[in-house]
Amino acid sequence: MSSSQFILRFTAETSANGVRAREFTLGDIPGILWSPAAPAPASAPAPGSGRAPLVLLGHGGGTHKKWPGVVGRAQRLVSDGGFHVVCVDAPGHGGRPRTEHDEREIDVMQRAMGAGEPVGPIVTRYNAHIAERAVPEWRATLDALQELPEIGPDGPVGYFGLNMGTAIGVPLAAAEPRIAAAVFGLFWPDTVAETARRITIPIEFAMQWDDQHIPRESALALFDAFASKEKTLHANSGAHKEMPRFEADSAVRFFARHLGPGVATGA
Amino acid sequence: MSSSQFILRFTAETSANGVRAREFTLGDIPGILWSPAAPAPASAPAPGSGRAPLVLLGHGGGTHKKWPGVVGRAQRLVSDGGFHVVCVDAPGHGGRPRTEHDEREIDVMQRAMGAGEPVGPIVTRYNAHIAERAVPEWRATLDALQELPEIGPDGPVGYFGLNMGTAIGVPLAAAEPRIAAAVFGLFWPDTVAETARRITIPIEFAMQWDDQHIPRESALALFDAFASKEKTLHANSGAHKEMPRFEADSAVRFFARHLGPGVATGA
Repeated sequence: MSSSQFILRFTAETSANGVRAREFTLGDIPGILWSPAAPAPASAPAPGSGRAPLVLLGHGGGTHKKWPGVVGRAQRLVSDGGFHVVCVDAPGHGGRPRTEHDEREIDVMQRAMGAGEPVGPIVTRYNAHIAERAVPEWRATLDALQELPEIGPDGPVGYFGLNMGTAIGVPLAAAEPRIAAAVFGLFWPDTVAETARRITIPIEFAMQWDDQHIPRESALALFDAFASKEKTLHANSGAHKEMPRFEADSAVRFFARHLGPGVATGA
Repeated sequence: MSSSQFILRFTAETSANGVRAREFTLGDIPGILWSPAAPAPASAPAPGSGRAPLVLLGHGGGTHKKWPGVVGRAQRLVSDGGFHVVCVDAPGHGGRPRTEHDEREIDVMQRAMGAGEPVGPIVTRYNAHIAERAVPEWRATLDALQELPEIGPDGPVGYFGLNMGTAIGVPLAAAEPRIAAAVFGLFWPDTVAETARRITIPIEFAMQWDDQHIPRESALALFDAFASKEKTLHANSGAHKEMPRFEADSAVRFFARHLGPGVATGA
């Protein structure tokens, strides 16, 4: 994969409630970069002004960069943390084409769900396949964004992804030394626990205590697998999709502790 | 036990950093009430002004109401939450006399610790004994403090106690309908899990993932026992005494969610 595939082009920009959202493409990968909206400068800002940590935000299976839960987390990370936040559509997700392999696996998964059969074996297998494609895309995204003056090459980087976002994020964090802290959760250990054993950065891990898809012991085993000296488990009562919203606020505070402060927006 | 035993007398008062601390005795039980320090009023405040939720703060075994960890939690609850906070010395703790039974159990416990033997069986047994004495004292404390105009009879009440504070707090919360939310943790299920099954208020429960005294499965079993529809487990890497300080901040936010806002101190 040559880096010439990955040319960053900003395609649209909006700004609301102190958050600037820039859509972009990196080659044929669509993404959004959310940033603190700078107050109107009295003069041209110096290069590197507004520099702040970057958080990579991985969406879940079947969703995409504009999914309400994704946008909501991005807005909190910008407004409350002052971070830059980026989400790119995973392979086969959002506006991106599905391969025959994608179609086949999605079909198997939907049939299992319809029949009330366990989806874990299919999700873990299929998401591992997506992760193989997504990890180099995330690394190229990081390369490109670190060339922007407001992000820069030396700033700390976080990763935040649940569900498929964890299936992609665990191998990404293991491969990518620029990632300094990560929030994971809502996933099985089967395909990622071995890789988690090589991860030593601070981790916050969220699970649902009454998850109908992921057995409690499986979620606890994945949390246990991380070699991180500093790690925190948050388990909330409720089913797979009932994670309380305050966990998104907790993630903002986790990144503020480990990446340092972002840009004060005055919002 | 007649209520005439329990006359509330304030004995000393200090104020620093926006926190007013009033020492008191309730009969022969010594305690401290921490409150938001009101700004100097232009005129006499109306009765009930500054009214805010009350958090009962239970100290751990071997400590007391002026232990740094207790005072630190109280200050955060007042400064960041705007709550009133009270801690009373548990029977046999702080300045309070020890019975022969206390002396004997403490001796057995210290010998087990010195010999590197498991302390769980002794701590759970002894703390259950202390809880029998402490629960009516806490209820009398609550009765007395609810007569103060700044607390009042109808406001929501929280309970926050780890270690022995959980051994006392679980039967207290089960017996006391005025307690609307509680933070527990760092305890074994043996003597309290049956009682926890009758508790339905929102719970935040803290454990240490690498606790050298409390087996991981035991801590998880106690969290699981609570019948609360809304409950959250926080497990942090590290040994029994290595709970991160940010868990105290989490408790403040938990009470703010469930008890409502306290008094804005402007601090």
